[in-house]
Amino acid sequence: MNMHPISPRRALGRVFVPMVTLAHGGGGKAMKDLIDDVFISAFADATPQVLEDQARFDLAGLAAHGDRLAFTTDSFVVDPLFFPGGDIGKLAVCGTINDLAVGGAKPLYLSCAVVIEEGMQVELLRRIAQSMAHAAREAGVSIVTGDTKVVQRGACDKIFITTTGIGVIAPGVDLGVDRVRPGDGILVNGLLGDHGAAILCARGDLALETAIESDCAALHGLIAALLRAAPGARCIRDATRGGLATVLNEIADASGVSIEIEEALTPLREEVRGFCEILGLDPLYLANEGKIVIAVPRDEIAAALAALGAHPLGAGSALIGYAGCGEPGRVTMQTVFGGRRIVDMLVGEQLPRIC
Amino acid sequence: MNMHPISPRRALGRVFVPMVTLAHGGGGKAMKDLIDDVFISAFADATPQVLEDQARFDLAGLAAHGDRLAFTTDSFVVDPLFFPGGDIGKLAVCGTINDLAVGGAKPLYLSCAVVIEEGMQVELLRRIAQSMAHAAREAGVSIVTGDTKVVQRGACDKIFITTTGIGVIAPGVDLGVDRVRPGDGILVNGLLGDHGAAILCARGDLALETAIESDCAALHGLIAALLRAAPGARCIRDATRGGLATVLNEIADASGVSIEIEEALTPLREEVRGFCEILGLDPLYLANEGKIVIAVPRDEIAAALAALGAHPLGAGSALIGYAGCGEPGRVTMQTVFGGRRIVDMLVGEQLPRIC
Repeated sequence: MNMHPISPRRALGRVFVPMVTLAHGGGGKAMKDLIDDVFISAFADATPQVLEDQARFDLAGLAAHGDRLAFTTDSFVVDPLFFPGGDIGKLAVCGTINDLAVGGAKPLYLSCAVVIEEGMQVELLRRIAQSMAHAAREAGVSIVTGDTKVVQRGACDKIFITTTGIGVIAPGVDLGVDRVRPGDGILVNGLLGDHGAAILCARGDLALETAIESDCAALHGLIAALLRAAPGARCIRDATRGGLATVLNEIADASGVSIEIEEALTPLREEVRGFCEILGLDPLYLANEGKIVIAVPRDEIAAALAALGAHPLGAGSALIGYAGCGEPGRVTMQTVFGGRRIVDMLVGEQLPRIC
Repeated sequence: MNMHPISPRRALGRVFVPMVTLAHGGGGKAMKDLIDDVFISAFADATPQVLEDQARFDLAGLAAHGDRLAFTTDSFVVDPLFFPGGDIGKLAVCGTINDLAVGGAKPLYLSCAVVIEEGMQVELLRRIAQSMAHAAREAGVSIVTGDTKVVQRGACDKIFITTTGIGVIAPGVDLGVDRVRPGDGILVNGLLGDHGAAILCARGDLALETAIESDCAALHGLIAALLRAAPGARCIRDATRGGLATVLNEIADASGVSIEIEEALTPLREEVRGFCEILGLDPLYLANEGKIVIAVPRDEIAAALAALGAHPLGAGSALIGYAGCGEPGRVTMQTVFGGRRIVDMLVGEQLPRIC
């Protein structure tokens, strides 16, 4: 059972509900009031459409944006819910927008399903919904349908949000993790690891204080600019869980190429480097929420870098290495000390509940 | 971060992982192995497509089914995970198929996002994934993309599943909860309350033993048959959380009509009636997972009933009442004792975590 059609009266009404109770998930009056009060009032501002049980779009209207529909989903369970640079709501919107955009799709519509723990403060829920609405509005994307479930105290940790996105891919755009060829340049759009470091600090388990903020951002504008400048781009991946190292391994594996990067070229904030040294973490595995890894043919590297660098979200862009003809699937890094080490896929967890 | 492209080697491989650990949600090797082992191996059988990070469809192919895209999402948190007549996996597939179908859409594709509690047995997860795959295959729907998150022990109750569905609506189909007119017949497709009663019994808190099974089923075939027989149908709603009473109130409210039903005509299993009497529950509010409420113009009632009754999932179909010109939004029931009572929207919760 989903959200209900909005009526102006409901969207404007405010009901005093300090905490979420099981009744808010029962499908009845209390649920309707909570959804109207928190979600519909937030999302109605953000979207030209109204929230409906089932969202509907004319296929002809979608076809105006391209020839293929893209469809992707992600659950967000980040802990803590609020952290420097973002919160679970912003993350849930930006994360799914990025999942669409890295496939070359123009993000258009999102659904939003929340599982809420009984006892959660309604004010907190409202802040999260407003953050989602704000992120969607900024990105020009509409949240068009949703669902709310409430589980008893202890059955979930405050709130989990699942967003699913629909976008449309323009004709000729053909990005794929298996399309990288030896000689292609490997680019990133800026400093790596900020999100992972920010979350870990925000948990407060460590006696570390840093000014590191999550890089959480919607990257579809940056990616659109990149694709205009480098239409031959092979693949784009967002370096979220598992970080840069995991994405490079996926690309090398799927494309059957080797990849060699240079530590000296890999953008890393001094604080993140120090933070990782203290904790014994490898920054190549730290999660990002606003960073992409891009493979482009050699003759488009300069154009790609220029386009990335001209965008506010690509200020720290860099060419960090190349795909090669070495052992297929093998990722290596030239270290600053002149050595060469294997960059393997993440084994075990580095940071759980990072997104 | 989502599921990875399948390779035959991975789909066939079996990895011995008795329990889910946080490493399985870390974005690295363990996650890839778990997803390949449990989800991709199950869903690959069920779907012609392979699971991808981002699923893509030609818009032209979608347009062959109709002129509008339908999009809907639902989180499933049912407790217990396995119950007579179904499990959380079957529920997550059938529930979203039904959410598409009640809007008149032909269900085509599903995404599946799971949040898993650390320590969950992999075998249990496998059974759930296989149940999802089985339900999808039976329904002719493909699970095309997904996401897996693992949270630490105690941060969620075993597993939550969010499915999001895409379908296409054929030209001329126009169902809406606000389209019901006085004189329309109100139909249901069979015995009510089985799902709610089955879940409550399965929890084992009550010293009650019954043979009641959940009615969990995908109803798109039934609905397609209904729409062929009664093309003027006004609206179809699945009577899930909040039960028949809540749906009738939503229809009456949105359409500005009164609705009067007859208790004697409302199909209810004798066990469910008895079960509710013992527990002081009102069966009109019990959840269903295979029952729909249909409003059709008077001249199509007979054809609609015939079509429903001819389908295996509509064997117990009945005309239970009519929309009228009484107080808009008011739902009443003629009781078997000759009285008349108001059927209000559910206030508070009757049964949490029912779906």
